[in-house]
Amino acid sequence: MRAAVFRRGEIVVDTLPDPVPAEGQVLVRTRACGICGSDLHAARFTDSFVDVARRSGGRYTMTADRDVVFGHEFVAEVVANGPGTAGRFPPGTLVTSMPLTLTGTTVHGIGYNPDIAGGFAEYMPLAERMLLPVPDGMDPDHAALVEPMAVGEHAVEEARLGGEEVALVIGCGPVGLAVIAALRLRGIRPVIAADFSPARRALAARMGADAVVDPAAASPYAALLEAATPPGHDPSRYAQLFRTSPPRRPTVLFECVGVPGVLQAMLEGAPPGARIVVVGVCMEPDRIEPFFAIAKQIELRFVLAYTPEEFARTLEHIAAGRIAVAPLITGRVGLDGVRQAFADLARPEAQAKILVEPWR
Amino acid sequence: MRAAVFRRGEIVVDTLPDPVPAEGQVLVRTRACGICGSDLHAARFTDSFVDVARRSGGRYTMTADRDVVFGHEFVAEVVANGPGTAGRFPPGTLVTSMPLTLTGTTVHGIGYNPDIAGGFAEYMPLAERMLLPVPDGMDPDHAALVEPMAVGEHAVEEARLGGEEVALVIGCGPVGLAVIAALRLRGIRPVIAADFSPARRALAARMGADAVVDPAAASPYAALLEAATPPGHDPSRYAQLFRTSPPRRPTVLFECVGVPGVLQAMLEGAPPGARIVVVGVCMEPDRIEPFFAIAKQIELRFVLAYTPEEFARTLEHIAAGRIAVAPLITGRVGLDGVRQAFADLARPEAQAKILVEPWR
Repeated sequence: MRAAVFRRGEIVVDTLPDPVPAEGQVLVRTRACGICGSDLHAARFTDSFVDVARRSGGRYTMTADRDVVFGHEFVAEVVANGPGTAGRFPPGTLVTSMPLTLTGTTVHGIGYNPDIAGGFAEYMPLAERMLLPVPDGMDPDHAALVEPMAVGEHAVEEARLGGEEVALVIGCGPVGLAVIAALRLRGIRPVIAADFSPARRALAARMGADAVVDPAAASPYAALLEAATPPGHDPSRYAQLFRTSPPRRPTVLFECVGVPGVLQAMLEGAPPGARIVVVGVCMEPDRIEPFFAIAKQIELRFVLAYTPEEFARTLEHIAAGRIAVAPLITGRVGLDGVRQAFADLARPEAQAKILVEPWR
Repeated sequence: MRAAVFRRGEIVVDTLPDPVPAEGQVLVRTRACGICGSDLHAARFTDSFVDVARRSGGRYTMTADRDVVFGHEFVAEVVANGPGTAGRFPPGTLVTSMPLTLTGTTVHGIGYNPDIAGGFAEYMPLAERMLLPVPDGMDPDHAALVEPMAVGEHAVEEARLGGEEVALVIGCGPVGLAVIAALRLRGIRPVIAADFSPARRALAARMGADAVVDPAAASPYAALLEAATPPGHDPSRYAQLFRTSPPRRPTVLFECVGVPGVLQAMLEGAPPGARIVVVGVCMEPDRIEPFFAIAKQIELRFVLAYTPEEFARTLEHIAAGRIAVAPLITGRVGLDGVRQAFADLARPEAQAKILVEPWR
């Protein structure tokens, strides 16, 4: 099969052996697969990505010296049911899945695994037990957005909100947009979103942000404080209290950037008593001044990925139109275009989510 | 009055004007006042202490160029009720208080405030509203331990435990010992405590730690994992699962050191799903690798000080003997001995809590 292979720092198109489904696996033909910010990071900072992934445990088994095929946000079509499957999904069925597959009870990651090609290849060996059929009437390509949108669902679930919160989302790439969607699904208002990119701020508004802030022009934290001030109260009084007392409404902030320095800026800007959910995946060392978090008694909740229930629920939300993902798809490329797409995604103004279509 | 004054980097004994109680204030005579680790830090790293305190807000109004009298863990005797007081506490009454005083409704910190001398001086102007009388039969000096012990009460309260947790306390100075006491009061078992100092490990055991670990000889995190493994299960299996799955019993870890590097070590060592409560007050920049927290979905809760209720409850616990603080008092000095006591406290093997007795 053809695949966009990450090989010693470069993405090249090459031919690999077709995967052979093992016990309980289904061979699928990849229809579309999104490019994730973590793919960009793994390609650009391979050594640190591999080092941190290895030292922190988990299922990223990628190394710097072996070929790897990225791609963990996919929709695919069943080609053949392998040995020991129940045949629940006839050939032609459109499916998605969490980016994991199984051999027996052993779980294998898909996307950063040199032993199993991800969604930037023509075929994948998925676990029948983990497949979710794409509901009738849903645009199949939208199922490739389930994975990134589930990240937002999980982050907001783990925030354990009471319902009265004022929310600030820092960073409006796909992760931030997913968080905005999940907040609005729970009725959290207002949701304030901040990004330096006008295009991303426009997307944030389309996903349901009540207000968008350009951090180059105004402080997102001042906007949060203003929103957390009850009607009829003087925000300047709260600006003063800010130093020692929480504002009246609880505040929750989402870190959706994942680069060094953002967390410290949020610790400095957040109101006392704030909850900060860290969704952006920073794989480099970072510098913080803990006393800011201590003086404000801040709660930092680090989250990753999603549960199977959150993933399935997100598919239902998208299928029912409760999360409108169409505006997020800003580009489509074949395998030959993956290398350029990685370069294009480094400029956030131009792109949000690019889908790789291996059969294009 | 006489006071141990921190002046341009040195502690000197000098004579200051006696405080004059303002409206609602009571003049008290300091009986004893503990030396806190934050006092040592403020003396040794004055510029960074002042800078971080200022930038992060709060009530530390100390500057590098003005004299300041430290001391915020005190027991005192009422000398005179000032104007506008209700006279609730006749002269001679032994009292303690949170280290704050009031003029009208304005709150002033005591301990890092160049305008109000703290407990390393002979007299203080406290707010009548905030005074708590020392219960009959209580060793008065034990009331000087209410403040540091309340820090542990608050930290454990903010940990919002369910009761099934296995706890690990990193650092067995006064803060760690206070956390151990508060955990045991809630019936949390086992409590594992780690410190490089044999004397501090012995104190941890006296405060109720079920197990103590010397990090130079064994991993406190391995001990935590072992304790979180249910009976009849194989800890080596959990050691393997460690990379991706939480152990069976929830784990809570308390950072009670407050120096750079400890937080990262805890992020690396903690099991997946762990809650880490940061009680140690680190006032320097720190380096973390956020991906460890992300991969394990760790919750970090930064806490500071205590509520008035927690402070009052801690006084009751000590008075009733539910927290035995006598072993923590390892030294007593007069004002002339404060300078040497600061030096001695830098060697944790020798000392835990030194009480300053201004009238000694």
